[in-house]
Amino acid sequence: MNTFGRIFRVNIFGESHGTGVGVVLDGVPAGLPLKFSDFESDLGRRRAGAKGTTPRKEADLPKLMNGVFNNHTTGAPLVIQFENTNTRSKDYDKLREMPRPGHADFVATKKFGGFEDYRGGGHFSARITLGLVGAGVIAKKLIAPVGIEAKLIEAGGNKDIEAAIDKAVEEQDSIGGIIECRVINLPVGLGEPYFDSLESSLAHMMFAIPAVKGIEFGSGFQAAKMKGSQHNDNILSMDGKTETNHAGGINGGISNGNDLVFRIAIKPTSSISKEQKTLNVKTGKIDILRVEGRHDLCVALRAPVIVEAATAVVLADFMLLEQNIKRVIQ
Amino acid sequence: MNTFGRIFRVNIFGESHGTGVGVVLDGVPAGLPLKFSDFESDLGRRRAGAKGTTPRKEADLPKLMNGVFNNHTTGAPLVIQFENTNTRSKDYDKLREMPRPGHADFVATKKFGGFEDYRGGGHFSARITLGLVGAGVIAKKLIAPVGIEAKLIEAGGNKDIEAAIDKAVEEQDSIGGIIECRVINLPVGLGEPYFDSLESSLAHMMFAIPAVKGIEFGSGFQAAKMKGSQHNDNILSMDGKTETNHAGGINGGISNGNDLVFRIAIKPTSSISKEQKTLNVKTGKIDILRVEGRHDLCVALRAPVIVEAATAVVLADFMLLEQNIKRVIQ
Amino acid sequence: MNTFGRIFRVNIFGESHGTGVGVVLDGVPAGLPLKFSDFESDLGRRRAGAKGTTPRKEADLPKLMNGVFNNHTTGAPLVIQFENTNTRSKDYDKLREMPRPGHADFVATKKFGGFEDYRGGGHFSARITLGLVGAGVIAKKLIAPVGIEAKLIEAGGNKDIEAAIDKAVEEQDSIGGIIECRVINLPVGLGEPYFDSLESSLAHMMFAIPAVKGIEFGSGFQAAKMKGSQHNDNILSMDGKTETNHAGGINGGISNGNDLVFRIAIKPTSSISKEQKTLNVKTGKIDILRVEGRHDLCVALRAPVIVEAATAVVLADFMLLEQNIKRVIQ
Amino acid sequence: MNTFGRIFRVNIFGESHGTGVGVVLDGVPAGLPLKFSDFESDLGRRRAGAKGTTPRKEADLPKLMNGVFNNHTTGAPLVIQFENTNTRSKDYDKLREMPRPGHADFVATKKFGGFEDYRGGGHFSARITLGLVGAGVIAKKLIAPVGIEAKLIEAGGNKDIEAAIDKAVEEQDSIGGIIECRVINLPVGLGEPYFDSLESSLAHMMFAIPAVKGIEFGSGFQAAKMKGSQHNDNILSMDGKTETNHAGGINGGISNGNDLVFRIAIKPTSSISKEQKTLNVKTGKIDILRVEGRHDLCVALRAPVIVEAATAVVLADFMLLEQNIKRVIQ
Repeated sequence: MNTFGRIFRVNIFGESHGTGVGVVLDGVPAGLPLKFSDFESDLGRRRAGAKGTTPRKEADLPKLMNGVFNNHTTGAPLVIQFENTNTRSKDYDKLREMPRPGHADFVATKKFGGFEDYRGGGHFSARITLGLVGAGVIAKKLIAPVGIEAKLIEAGGNKDIEAAIDKAVEEQDSIGGIIECRVINLPVGLGEPYFDSLESSLAHMMFAIPAVKGIEFGSGFQAAKMKGSQHNDNILSMDGKTETNHAGGINGGISNGNDLVFRIAIKPTSSISKEQKTLNVKTGKIDILRVEGRHDLCVALRAPVIVEAATAVVLADFMLLEQNIKRVIQ
Repeated sequence: MNTFGRIFRVNIFGESHGTGVGVVLDGVPAGLPLKFSDFESDLGRRRAGAKGTTPRKEADLPKLMNGVFNNHTTGAPLVIQFENTNTRSKDYDKLREMPRPGHADFVATKKFGGFEDYRGGGHFSARITLGLVGAGVIAKKLIAPVGIEAKLIEAGGNKDIEAAIDKAVEEQDSIGGIIECRVINLPVGLGEPYFDSLESSLAHMMFAIPAVKGIEFGSGFQAAKMKGSQHNDNILSMDGKTETNHAGGINGGISNGNDLVFRIAIKPTSSISKEQKTLNVKTGKIDILRVEGRHDLCVALRAPVIVEAATAVVLADFMLLEQNIKRVIQ
Repeated sequence: MNTFGRIFRVNIFGESHGTGVGVVLDGVPAGLPLKFSDFESDLGRRRAGAKGTTPRKEADLPKLMNGVFNNHTTGAPLVIQFENTNTRSKDYDKLREMPRPGHADFVATKKFGGFEDYRGGGHFSARITLGLVGAGVIAKKLIAPVGIEAKLIEAGGNKDIEAAIDKAVEEQDSIGGIIECRVINLPVGLGEPYFDSLESSLAHMMFAIPAVKGIEFGSGFQAAKMKGSQHNDNILSMDGKTETNHAGGINGGISNGNDLVFRIAIKPTSSISKEQKTLNVKTGKIDILRVEGRHDLCVALRAPVIVEAATAVVLADFMLLEQNIKRVIQ
Repeated sequence: MNTFGRIFRVNIFGESHGTGVGVVLDGVPAGLPLKFSDFESDLGRRRAGAKGTTPRKEADLPKLMNGVFNNHTTGAPLVIQFENTNTRSKDYDKLREMPRPGHADFVATKKFGGFEDYRGGGHFSARITLGLVGAGVIAKKLIAPVGIEAKLIEAGGNKDIEAAIDKAVEEQDSIGGIIECRVINLPVGLGEPYFDSLESSLAHMMFAIPAVKGIEFGSGFQAAKMKGSQHNDNILSMDGKTETNHAGGINGGISNGNDLVFRIAIKPTSSISKEQKTLNVKTGKIDILRVEGRHDLCVALRAPVIVEAATAVVLADFMLLEQNIKRVIQ
């Protein structure tokens, strides 16, 4: 399935080299002001261009197809589409024989019987996250004054991001990174114990972002090494503010009135130009692969805005459920 | 909501000090042999008793109330209940005034308006995971020959679990731990890119387990420090086996034919007998709290079987969706 | 699946001759006053006893197992169970060979591979609607001042219900009936166009009641014979009140501020003591069957309170979604 | 919400006078052959043109945007869009003041706070069923050899459809109708007792079609007037075939191996050119309305193919769940 959410529902679709990608949003409250330029900033942050990102350039202009009228949301399904314009599909024919190590090529063919659109990664391409960023723009507006900021705090094991990128470019090898996301002004009470915990939903959503391999809240893996007397956050005031924030803003699956803080691990891009060994599925023998095509050396550079969008989408859904957001924005 | 799954659906309920806890399973295939003794081993592993676990002892005898007939599942909703017998509720009255640091006390009262059953943590108690372990027993039988093994690989930051427990007992302070889970014989093709990725569903489920604060697949957070040429797993054979397993058995959200491997971080139990500072919600002032009641010093000791159960439940759902499991077991 | 609803979720389970039947309610707001005696009236209306109903008598005392504390709902899953006490299973062994015409015997065996609990209809028994009536008691309290009244307006094709029952008893043949349900004080705006129309959800729910074979809203099938100028309801006031109510209170899938009115058709009970022809699945030949066991001659007599409960459950879900009901009742 | 289905999921969107309408299909098996011309026949049947249908003509050419590659489905979300080309929005400005009797105008404004796109009925327009017909084309191919045929069996209370239309044209008044749908070759075992009964899902879906006000299965409302000895269908053979088909092919919510038969009631179109009384929401007084714009006199004429599509979509979902359809079509 490609749908997420209970009230604010996101449905993404598209392929890297087909006509385009997009998103259907269901359950968006009516009356939210929305115009083309609202998307500029976040789409710009996701766009390639900086050192370490793919040479494939796309304008990524959002078309608001449905659900918007007189510059406001209507309450009907909201559809945003993005055209694909800059595609070079011939690079990908060779990969049919030689699935890339670390990539979805092999599982895609197994799962979809060889019928998948393999050009540019098809539906597996990170380009599909464009729809998520579009959804995030709307979700961020809905949840205000809740604020979200995600940033890359480490790349290739290095806190100096710029130096790490330079080294990757030099070595022509990809690198991963760690993104930290912080949410402020969140109301107390979002989430439930167990299956609808705020952590469950956020983690579910974050692993929908390609290349994410880990998530931790508050002190996270470090908490496993702590004692209760160190980890417990002393409560200081009636609005739930605590002395420390080892819990990352969530107790018992529920937001506790402190900043929500989590980190995610992004693996290095699997498509690298260095030579690699892999199976040739035609010959059944191990062969040498050198991946063509245009790829990010550090996809983590473009991911913070995707993480923010994903977070906003989850929070919009919870806040509608908890009636922190009305069904019509007046 | 307290429901998980699309075809194999788990619905847990209960309170620590009420009549009991339990689970409703919907979508269980008919014809699976099932008897009382099938539950003994896993429930035994979850039960308290070892050093470092709570002194509250419960028999935890499963009552198969519905959905089983002639020692086979019928295809109708399957209900398992466990009675609460050993409760000491008076310990908890004081906590109404002084919410425990690190515990759900504060958010529960805020969210449920003070109507929550606060005795023993009520619906927030880890006792509710009994239903999940019951569900896991059935799920494990369904997914065979897929095999799952979770174990505690670190406690209180220490690989020597026994020494860590001894130290915690001595200090009367709780400790956390790290659990690693490995799944063998998994078919290729479980999961989808994006919202129904295998990682998304497993992470969603794992954060439903109380005290979990992080999850990572394969190399996880370490992957963020690696280069693509190091992290990529070279494919060696037509069944997808790879030279290394940095991906933890999942590419593009889909199982790839290798062992599924993930680790979760468990924070230290929040209820400790050491003195702590917290807000007195009656006086509005900071006060000193010493938690009474019976609690685990290292809840991570009892968690591996819960992690296994949670994993089995997720996999049973995916395998029914992918038609790896039939709707009637013959 | 045996679950219904998006926010207010109902999960029913049980068998006619097993330990009992019950319901799990998820998403019930906290703080709703609830006591044992609240259930008396509706359960009494559903109970057998009157002429034309089954001689099987059950006390049907609801056990509030979970989710209630200090006579208020807690916001945690609410579980109600009912014991089976008066069962005579031997009546049913013969039916394994000779599936009853008009009954689920045949499809149950085919679908569940013969593993179904066949005693007393097992999970197919109308006894499972007890859980629904229990859920309805809570839903009715939640949606007040919205009021629901369902009544039997025709039995065996006859408006004089008593005479129809007398005739059925005399002929020892079962009869069907038509139930009309009317809802007052409903807010404008429940429902959506298309898949979540109020009619879609109500119809979905009504066909979950055994023996229902038709539903119509407002003028219903009669509307198909009318002209637009006759059928259109002229709007008279700003609160949406109309001159006539051919639409039954719903336009475009959304409640319009008038009474919600619908009717459902109940077929005659399939289990009758008259001789019938059916297949003997052992011999493969047509044989004569005379059904033993205790059955209703006119199940429609007991159905109005079930229809009311089903309606209340649907409306509670919509009213929570539209924020007409708060998440904590103060 | 605008989504239907558990495995085969349909998500419709669009407005009458916006850029267009469309559908996202999620969970479509990979490998199904699909080409542009597959849509011609069903879209042609839905298209206006015959006497009694709207004078608005649209080409309704389906654009297969995503999820199709090399003339086969890929397993990724499948998107079909249809442009709006022939719109005359100025006809609708007047209706802002005077909501049409029998139409969704009034409830739409109340529910969406006046932000709805009101042109041509906006998201409430029957034009949105184009996406459903597109989905139906694919679903019908998936479920073959299951066959579906719906036809108009009565219009304006008259079995002679042509005469009824002539009279409606003459009177310039709209009329309703009754559509009967029959499904052959359906496997035994689709559906569950209670909330996922086949009747529940079909009814849910049918009431998603604008103007539907009633549904009945088999003998339906007539069954309410019958005796059990008349209504029960005697079973004749091991594949479930019965002597009569009063049940309409469903017992206990589950398909029984006979033809599935149901009828739906379509109300007359609410937009008529005759003068009507309605509230003027600006003045708060009752006023005379004469509806401009282009409308169907008998929308039931175009509905059979929509009913077929809706049926196919429901059955595809159930057949995937029951594993009658594979996840990859080879």
